[in-house]
Amino acid sequence: MIDLRSDTVTKPTEEMKLAMFEAAVGDDVYGEDPTVNELELMAAQVLGKEAALFVTSGTQGNQIAVLNHTRPGDEVLLEEDSHLFLYEGGAMAGLAGVQTRTIQGVRGQMPINELEAAIRTDDIHFPETALICLENTHNRAGGAVVPLEYMWEVYTVAQKNDIPVHLDGARLWNAAVALDVSVSTLTQYVDTVQVCLSKGLSAPMGSILAGPRDWIDRARKWRKKLGGGMRQAGHMAAPGLLAIRDMVDRLTEDHRQAKALAAGIAPLSCFEVDVDHVETNIVLVDTEKSGQPAQYFIHKLKEEYDILATSFGPTLIRLMTHREITDDHIQAAVAAFRRMDETL
Amino acid sequence: MIDLRSDTVTKPTEEMKLAMFEAAVGDDVYGEDPTVNELELMAAQVLGKEAALFVTSGTQGNQIAVLNHTRPGDEVLLEEDSHLFLYEGGAMAGLAGVQTRTIQGVRGQMPINELEAAIRTDDIHFPETALICLENTHNRAGGAVVPLEYMWEVYTVAQKNDIPVHLDGARLWNAAVALDVSVSTLTQYVDTVQVCLSKGLSAPMGSILAGPRDWIDRARKWRKKLGGGMRQAGHMAAPGLLAIRDMVDRLTEDHRQAKALAAGIAPLSCFEVDVDHVETNIVLVDTEKSGQPAQYFIHKLKEEYDILATSFGPTLIRLMTHREITDDHIQAAVAAFRRMDETL
Amino acid sequence: MIDLRSDTVTKPTEEMKLAMFEAAVGDDVYGEDPTVNELELMAAQVLGKEAALFVTSGTQGNQIAVLNHTRPGDEVLLEEDSHLFLYEGGAMAGLAGVQTRTIQGVRGQMPINELEAAIRTDDIHFPETALICLENTHNRAGGAVVPLEYMWEVYTVAQKNDIPVHLDGARLWNAAVALDVSVSTLTQYVDTVQVCLSKGLSAPMGSILAGPRDWIDRARKWRKKLGGGMRQAGHMAAPGLLAIRDMVDRLTEDHRQAKALAAGIAPLSCFEVDVDHVETNIVLVDTEKSGQPAQYFIHKLKEEYDILATSFGPTLIRLMTHREITDDHIQAAVAAFRRMDETL
Amino acid sequence: MIDLRSDTVTKPTEEMKLAMFEAAVGDDVYGEDPTVNELELMAAQVLGKEAALFVTSGTQGNQIAVLNHTRPGDEVLLEEDSHLFLYEGGAMAGLAGVQTRTIQGVRGQMPINELEAAIRTDDIHFPETALICLENTHNRAGGAVVPLEYMWEVYTVAQKNDIPVHLDGARLWNAAVALDVSVSTLTQYVDTVQVCLSKGLSAPMGSILAGPRDWIDRARKWRKKLGGGMRQAGHMAAPGLLAIRDMVDRLTEDHRQAKALAAGIAPLSCFEVDVDHVETNIVLVDTEKSGQPAQYFIHKLKEEYDILATSFGPTLIRLMTHREITDDHIQAAVAAFRRMDETL
Repeated sequence: MIDLRSDTVTKPTEEMKLAMFEAAVGDDVYGEDPTVNELELMAAQVLGKEAALFVTSGTQGNQIAVLNHTRPGDEVLLEEDSHLFLYEGGAMAGLAGVQTRTIQGVRGQMPINELEAAIRTDDIHFPETALICLENTHNRAGGAVVPLEYMWEVYTVAQKNDIPVHLDGARLWNAAVALDVSVSTLTQYVDTVQVCLSKGLSAPMGSILAGPRDWIDRARKWRKKLGGGMRQAGHMAAPGLLAIRDMVDRLTEDHRQAKALAAGIAPLSCFEVDVDHVETNIVLVDTEKSGQPAQYFIHKLKEEYDILATSFGPTLIRLMTHREITDDHIQAAVAAFRRMDETL
Repeated sequence: MIDLRSDTVTKPTEEMKLAMFEAAVGDDVYGEDPTVNELELMAAQVLGKEAALFVTSGTQGNQIAVLNHTRPGDEVLLEEDSHLFLYEGGAMAGLAGVQTRTIQGVRGQMPINELEAAIRTDDIHFPETALICLENTHNRAGGAVVPLEYMWEVYTVAQKNDIPVHLDGARLWNAAVALDVSVSTLTQYVDTVQVCLSKGLSAPMGSILAGPRDWIDRARKWRKKLGGGMRQAGHMAAPGLLAIRDMVDRLTEDHRQAKALAAGIAPLSCFEVDVDHVETNIVLVDTEKSGQPAQYFIHKLKEEYDILATSFGPTLIRLMTHREITDDHIQAAVAAFRRMDETL
Repeated sequence: MIDLRSDTVTKPTEEMKLAMFEAAVGDDVYGEDPTVNELELMAAQVLGKEAALFVTSGTQGNQIAVLNHTRPGDEVLLEEDSHLFLYEGGAMAGLAGVQTRTIQGVRGQMPINELEAAIRTDDIHFPETALICLENTHNRAGGAVVPLEYMWEVYTVAQKNDIPVHLDGARLWNAAVALDVSVSTLTQYVDTVQVCLSKGLSAPMGSILAGPRDWIDRARKWRKKLGGGMRQAGHMAAPGLLAIRDMVDRLTEDHRQAKALAAGIAPLSCFEVDVDHVETNIVLVDTEKSGQPAQYFIHKLKEEYDILATSFGPTLIRLMTHREITDDHIQAAVAAFRRMDETL
Repeated sequence: MIDLRSDTVTKPTEEMKLAMFEAAVGDDVYGEDPTVNELELMAAQVLGKEAALFVTSGTQGNQIAVLNHTRPGDEVLLEEDSHLFLYEGGAMAGLAGVQTRTIQGVRGQMPINELEAAIRTDDIHFPETALICLENTHNRAGGAVVPLEYMWEVYTVAQKNDIPVHLDGARLWNAAVALDVSVSTLTQYVDTVQVCLSKGLSAPMGSILAGPRDWIDRARKWRKKLGGGMRQAGHMAAPGLLAIRDMVDRLTEDHRQAKALAAGIAPLSCFEVDVDHVETNIVLVDTEKSGQPAQYFIHKLKEEYDILATSFGPTLIRLMTHREITDDHIQAAVAAFRRMDETL
């Protein structure tokens, strides 16, 4: 089976499993797990923030950020196709009680003038604009890299209006690699950031939330309320350490494969791929020209070619490369698309 | 002072004040206020619903509806410029914990295909779509009347998906008068509805929330939690009764005046008014051609012409007619705009 | 019918109804209702606070206070039989998301050492103690007056721990009259206070929430979210002004009548009344010695004697005096209890 | 260091670590982790419920239960010293918006008549009683076993009133071993249950939430909102499987050691231990007779004897036995207490 559904399906490496086995652990609720402490210290440094917190998932990191930055009845500005809005079960409202005000972006970037216009003035009818969220790379925009200049522009608007910025950096490592900058170059323009260890980096679970020290202290309490406080969590922090140390550079491989995959499909008559916009490890294939819905091909890929893909809309297939994908897999996937194109 | 800011500024009529004075009252928390009971009975009948509840404001009626239809973490579909989203302090999220998913409408009408596409499927990442909200007439769309056919279409989609529809009918009376139908003709295509007594109808305060009997029983408990349970509330229900009985028909006057106002301003070179879209008592004047922001003219109208108006955006003035506006006021307002146009 | 259920049943006086009729009004959402403004100014002064807000009910005032003082996940300390905990629909948790930590009091007074011990230390497992609530007079404690010294003691503990104190003063006027002090003497030991206009003071509806100016500014926004923003609210503020100005002194009458009622029932063999603890306008009658539940007598009083009373527990009847109760009513009530005692 | 603070400090066994290393894993968000699936299946069976869910902590299991059983503004009945009320950061109110109504229990058992009396009747002032929570064994009551008969009584009252019962069974394994019954014998009298894998059973992290199938389906969505959805979670489920299979029986050892520890301290003149009430693995030592606070001895134990203990109140020390405690440790602890007793 060639699994192109998501980079979340990657299993830990042998080295990671060994680290898991050998990890020095303690009770992290008491703050006594040395491996968790090491991971949080190292992650804070890499992300250029004062402190960091190991959380069980990207959703947990994002939701703690929202809970910690806002009060119920506040409003949060975010891109209309962002993960926080679409894929976190309505938790921003359900847990933090904040109203989501979405703005349609282009490749993950909300137009700055619209963003600025959406900030509420002081009026008894209005909620307070309490947070701006960004997502980099932007999943639904096809792994689009949100450029440094744009992040700086948003941060400038935010600071002028005394509004914090949180970055959903589930795939920030991909952005950094694509831009050939350090992640801390990107995070300098946000107040807080969440990055995943379990996507392209292959750790079995977990994310990092980073920000100012006192903010992280309060985040730790929110994590406890959400049930994210674990005991001998070092067994899961150990592969996370390796993920950050060893697995970032190889993301270039995923990006190269995604480009190869896109380039292979692009010439086909039934499918549309915007090769120039394959910036990281995601390829979006539009099936509209074929006259068939995405699900038709996703089913065919699975049944006839042993290839797994996901749907991103009625005529949109998402393919994602990751550590367990080989160049042979890419060739096989391109061949499958070519064959489907020929036989339609 | 000619106050064209809002129809909420209308003071009660002499008859209403007399009714307030003479009202038979009791303790409404015990259900013993005869005037409140009469109002709720009569309103339910007029709105074609099993039961009704007297609430202190339109916002309270809307928020109780959301609290009563949903659970935290659910999602609500509503128009992106709706009152519920823009002007109720983020309370849908702050109180009920529901995520707002907004869709851009045309004259208050969300495209049916987009509405349908926004309904969530069953997936662990998704909130449940628990409510659709409409607004008729639609304030920010310039008092636009949402037509009966559209309401029927939305209701059909909603019922097919087992989703209730709530109608913010703060100015539903205006819609009914404009369409020359009864309000119950409009409310047949929604599950629950909120109508205001204090806008064009001139009551000093209060709204009605109507729906199925057991739903209203639960709404009564939510009203108590929000502190909307009043004691000798009959003093405020009495003018509400007159509002529904006597004040609806005269809304045609407000609509006629609004059209006259629009027709008077439309020919001027600095201002744009879409006369054909003045369907009820709201006139939107665009100042873009003048090169000046709305605030410039609002200030000028107040200081030089004793006329009050409100801003609805950088270059948008909102003017609203109501019971206290005379034909002379309309002429004076037109004259003021003409003069401003000439002297710019 | 002699209605001894509650002082909330009092209808407004003729003078109040006239004031209601004649009130100068405006749109209070725009801050333009002169009578509301006058009431808020006067109430702030009487309560010795910087600013005040007219709200639709005592519950609304209390709930806004909790929303405004706390964040979700905080903890509030309050007496286990307090109105806020027992009779407000669980709104403290339902709206503000705060955990109620109740302490059993004696005549409304939580033991100071238990109160102090209940304040949470800084620990990742603990909520933050964010508010202490008092109730004076204390309804379920039989209208008990919470003494000035106790309020001072609580305030001292609170200030030492940086915790604000909110006073549910629904019947604070009764406490002030019983202690022969001004209400501001009592409110000097709390940060914020809610007082009712519609109980002993006879206004048809409404309460006042008072506190620091910036806190009231934010409270005004919470009131809007709860739907407590009204339009020509001056019609209801006008009787409130008279309530504060003219109706406080006559509460001594209610207290005298309550004592007379208690003294008349106390000697009877089937009923127990603690005459010494009838400090204000509430009389609690214990029916345990009779072998019959409170409901037995409440039913009998209504059916055979045209007297209304409420139950406060299996064997506890609550009787409340108010402006519409005459000395003849008191004699009739005593006679009814005597007759029930004789014929049991 | 002899760590008697908590059974949460236990590290996984070598076998567990090997299982962690070798676990077959997949992406659990897609439901494809075979080890997680096996754990959930096995746990449901052991707990006698239709379905089970692997969650990251006991707090998360409890909070999901509350979120899933209730609506905001509901009320929950629970023991005043329960973990859910005291140690979960006020999350019941902060996340689920439910009011906690606590009842003082005796050895974890709320008096049945008080429990029944606390159930709310249908009244507009009242929240709805939506859930009863039990805790077995009861931590703050010194590891007290809540007997089967009591659980049956509570369940009977609950069912009569249509109220579900949730059991915080963080240490339910200890109760089952102490009573020499299967855990499913205990869980037959509750609707839903949470049990921990990371306490006496030595798994590094995680708990199980079990109940009816459709209820668990919805719980899975709440887990996602709280960020408890993990990816290759099988690495953490594998030790959990061994915990349930292999580690329950050995809890008798912990109980024997706790009794020995209690028996050793009981005769000392400065300390009080209720030996008869040491039913499981917790020993509470009262220091009141010594004239010194608990913290005095906790500090001394650590500094002079290399023994760790926790405080459970001003004069209460909690000692807990677990897999990493040897008989020598018990003797050393007894000797330390004896020495402190002699030298005071």
